[in-house]
Amino acid sequence: MGRPRKALLDRTRIGRTALELIDETGDFTVPEVARRLGVQTASVYHHVDGRAGVIELVRDRVAEGLDAHTLDQRPWGAALEEWARSYRAAFAAHPRAIPMLTTSPVRAPRVLQQYERVAALLLDTGFAREVVMPIITGLDNIVLGSALDMSAPEEMWVVGEGVDAPRLALAQSATGADRSGQAFELALSGFLARCQELLEDGGPVGPAAHG
Amino acid sequence: MGRPRKALLDRTRIGRTALELIDETGDFTVPEVARRLGVQTASVYHHVDGRAGVIELVRDRVAEGLDAHTLDQRPWGAALEEWARSYRAAFAAHPRAIPMLTTSPVRAPRVLQQYERVAALLLDTGFAREVVMPIITGLDNIVLGSALDMSAPEEMWVVGEGVDAPRLALAQSATGADRSGQAFELALSGFLARCQELLEDGGPVGPAAHG
Repeated sequence: MGRPRKALLDRTRIGRTALELIDETGDFTVPEVARRLGVQTASVYHHVDGRAGVIELVRDRVAEGLDAHTLDQRPWGAALEEWARSYRAAFAAHPRAIPMLTTSPVRAPRVLQQYERVAALLLDTGFAREVVMPIITGLDNIVLGSALDMSAPEEMWVVGEGVDAPRLALAQSATGADRSGQAFELALSGFLARCQELLEDGGPVGPAAHG
Repeated sequence: MGRPRKALLDRTRIGRTALELIDETGDFTVPEVARRLGVQTASVYHHVDGRAGVIELVRDRVAEGLDAHTLDQRPWGAALEEWARSYRAAFAAHPRAIPMLTTSPVRAPRVLQQYERVAALLLDTGFAREVVMPIITGLDNIVLGSALDMSAPEEMWVVGEGVDAPRLALAQSATGADRSGQAFELALSGFLARCQELLEDGGPVGPAAHG
């Protein structure tokens, strides 16, 4: 963006430091970032546009883990599926950043470029333009919900004394390895099949028939 | 659980106060809860089993918003669908509590009882016992991902100067009201249809065929 090389390096360090603080404490402040970098708070503000600017640098750091090449695959479903897996892994490494990143508008250029590619993929495939953002958002929801779950304990429901939950205990004892991965596959495969229906119908989003 | 009435009241207040702190700051400490309640930290520890115990009281407060009567509906898909809607609304009111609650094991009796009912519903419907927890987890992921998204700005992607993202801009301009709700319907309906397939196959969780 025409900034000198040193400034770019500093922006990377600011994002990385804020992400470290979020990983450790769930949040950050600009003065804390400055302190950890050994600079004045004003120096940080010299490089970024306020707290929102730092959040975008954090988003950029987390999104570094996404493999955009997955979006070169065809058909569209294979591309979205592999992109979603890569996206889940990147965010699972930073679960405490998820609420901050999902409640603040996306402005980071690198991240916008990936969404641009997803939007282009869906439009070129023939999806109606009004369903593109609902599809992207639905995929986001599944990925981020699952990324949070990846840092959950494998035994998520602990039925203690005084609680009568025999069916839950039975279901838990029958569950195979990687509950979180199985759940993600189920949600993702159902989602992609529903999108395929939307593509064939060409219609708006509505509830599907089910049992 | 055999505790005197006053203690029960105090546990409710402890949970409510910790939830207030989470809503405001994203986290809580037991000393902060005590300070806000005007009591000694040791008094809080008298009522709860450490920080983990407070987290369960928070979970109980959030889960108060869930309508368990939705699970009386039949067929199973209608019950899960309405339960998921109620669950999404309850958690959307407290998005900052989501990461803490999803990464800590569920011990709160009231919450375990609801999962017991969901497990019983799925087993009685004829789902294989090994798919019950993946189904519950997948539904959790969709609901919690969407609950986070409900507190996102309606314009989530802001394409600024210097970023070339015309297809994303086109898709955004074509999106109708309630992007978040449309995405949730899409993910939920796809998920329930995929579960219906699992019920018919009786098999384990695997990727479905898609475009």
